Amino acid sequence: MRIHDLPTPALILDRAVVARNTERMAARVAGTGVRLRPHMKTAKSARVAELATAGQFGGITVSTLAEARYFAAAGIRDLTYAVGMVPGKLAEAAAIQRDGARLTLLTDDPGAATALADKASELGERFDVLVEIDSGGHRGGVAPEAPELLAIARILDEAENLNLAGVLTHAGHSYHCQGVAEVKAVAEQERQAAVRAAARLGEAGLPCLTVSAGSTPTALHAESFEGLTEIRPGVYMLFDLDQVGLGSCAVEDIGISVLASVIGHQRPHNRINIDAGSLALSQDRSAEEFLPDVGYGWVMAPDGRTRIGDLHVAAVNQEHGMVAGASPLPFDALPVGARVRVLPNHACITAAAYDRYHVVDGGDEVIDVWDRVNGW
Amino acid sequence: MRIHDLPTPALILDRAVVARNTERMAARVAGTGVRLRPHMKTAKSARVAELATAGQFGGITVSTLAEARYFAAAGIRDLTYAVGMVPGKLAEAAAIQRDGARLTLLTDDPGAATALADKASELGERFDVLVEIDSGGHRGGVAPEAPELLAIARILDEAENLNLAGVLTHAGHSYHCQGVAEVKAVAEQERQAAVRAAARLGEAGLPCLTVSAGSTPTALHAESFEGLTEIRPGVYMLFDLDQVGLGSCAVEDIGISVLASVIGHQRPHNRINIDAGSLALSQDRSAEEFLPDVGYGWVMAPDGRTRIGDLHVAAVNQEHGMVAGASPLPFDALPVGARVRVLPNHACITAAAYDRYHVVDGGDEVIDVWDRVNGW
Repeated sequence: MRIHDLPTPALILDRAVVARNTERMAARVAGTGVRLRPHMKTAKSARVAELATAGQFGGITVSTLAEARYFAAAGIRDLTYAVGMVPGKLAEAAAIQRDGARLTLLTDDPGAATALADKASELGERFDVLVEIDSGGHRGGVAPEAPELLAIARILDEAENLNLAGVLTHAGHSYHCQGVAEVKAVAEQERQAAVRAAARLGEAGLPCLTVSAGSTPTALHAESFEGLTEIRPGVYMLFDLDQVGLGSCAVEDIGISVLASVIGHQRPHNRINIDAGSLALSQDRSAEEFLPDVGYGWVMAPDGRTRIGDLHVAAVNQEHGMVAGASPLPFDALPVGARVRVLPNHACITAAAYDRYHVVDGGDEVIDVWDRVNGW
Repeated sequence: MRIHDLPTPALILDRAVVARNTERMAARVAGTGVRLRPHMKTAKSARVAELATAGQFGGITVSTLAEARYFAAAGIRDLTYAVGMVPGKLAEAAAIQRDGARLTLLTDDPGAATALADKASELGERFDVLVEIDSGGHRGGVAPEAPELLAIARILDEAENLNLAGVLTHAGHSYHCQGVAEVKAVAEQERQAAVRAAARLGEAGLPCLTVSAGSTPTALHAESFEGLTEIRPGVYMLFDLDQVGLGSCAVEDIGISVLASVIGHQRPHNRINIDAGSLALSQDRSAEEFLPDVGYGWVMAPDGRTRIGDLHVAAVNQEHGMVAGASPLPFDALPVGARVRVLPNHACITAAAYDRYHVVDGGDEVIDVWDRVNGW
């Protein structure tokens, strides 16, 4: 089967590109002493995880318990759930561990740490727990110098069924850097926050085996990983226009695209409609911070590599994408029924609308279908 | 099982509210002479379709072929696929018809009409096809006075395996009206466009059995349906904050909400984090046009009815929603692990992240689980 035979919209993954991206990250960490614990929240696919963990220690990061269940069932035994844990999810986490995986948890709250300790004892299941550190993104975590750091760490360390496993931070603000120099500065800030928090635990006589940091931009551009034990980039496997804008990759490194059909012409309004709208592309506009004409994604030829002029998806409704660009648009070259491929603004969000990837390997032949895990 | 026992995030549907909404629309069309062909693109659920078609003629509208397959398998026999058709999807449409349903198609393009005619003959399958009319939204369709209307209609009428079924329009611009008076004006514009297009077909000696219009705002506020044969509202089954802002409903008419857990406090930055982010809520901000403090949704108490102060989800990442509002936020009343319910900005998009509804019936007991069809 060739791409042209697929129903649209469909999510295409180019294995050759993804393999190159995962090899690039493997080369990046080789010899640095840090372990690569790839974040599977973007790709959510066991087959992509095989590429991302090849040659590595085998652990991964997940963003949902659904991912944890799925990857554990696929044979991955060392998982970090990098979202703040609540007691209500602990029975599910225990079930995953009883099936043979280790699921490391995260908290940044003394009350939650105490409640997790109580619930773990009630369940009779032991968990490793990391303390989340705020390295400047201010989404979650305690500041490295905050008194709460030691308070939380002591609760975890003293709990009968919890182990204080270390510290974890994510410099989410790296996604809004203007240029590589700024990414390097954020990477250093991320590293120092994690290392400083770990040092405080050590000074207090508390264990801290894991010092975890990382986002794709900081993993790619950090000048030092000293003091870290692992990094957790994710979107580098697939990349997207946001990462192109950030300087993490080139357009040809983007490993997924949405295959769409032209479904209408609006010549009086100089628009071409495609069957990829809010659901098939997502409403994420993060790339717009860097690429002013990106809209909901660039419109490429069916080869996925050549942008068609300045075409982009300018507006979306549920099942309609409205393509804009030069006036007049190339209506004759893109008759109703013609195929295009749309590069995603933000791979994590676009891919979440699909339960599978149609896989090509550098060409237009569909060589495989890889499943994905969605939901919670 | 009670709501409190559900894992989060989860999509809650209140059957009592949805039944009231569908009864309200049934009462609205009763005696008007128009048929109600509910659009299932929002709810995407056979159980909701049962409520929406109760007492009606039984036909529905769909936005994807996946919906068509699903609802046909659920026993619905009269479906209109209200998105521009392309020849590449015709084999799939033929398969749905061969399983016993009738799937009416849509086009606004002479080239596509010819290509559909050829493909239908090749498949040996006969299809009803509507011509899409632009009633002012300018997304799709030909203007009622455009020469192309008759050109397309003649191609359909003369094709061996196509029937010219009539005309269809959707006043998508009704979603951006400021106030009910403006909605009424758009409803009249929508009606007149469809009726005028139908009249032109009649004057040209062409058949036009179906004159189809409708969105939820125009269906609720139109002062006349004269000349229409059917209306196709959809979001009224579930409603959302966007429809509250538009004046289509009250807050208590919203039939779905996202159950979420508090997963962290950011006291230094006056934020509460919940486990419903970009994926669980969507990134749709349509309600912001009307409700300036809505963000990605209002934050309600676990009963789903009482807003907690002025709390709203101000920012989202993939699995994090950042709740903002009064300073300081009610951290003590919402400890980590506490539950809230978030009202959606746009039900069609929020619901699409879930493969099921957890159904309550006015209370907090989960009385059922209803499936949904997603994807394409």
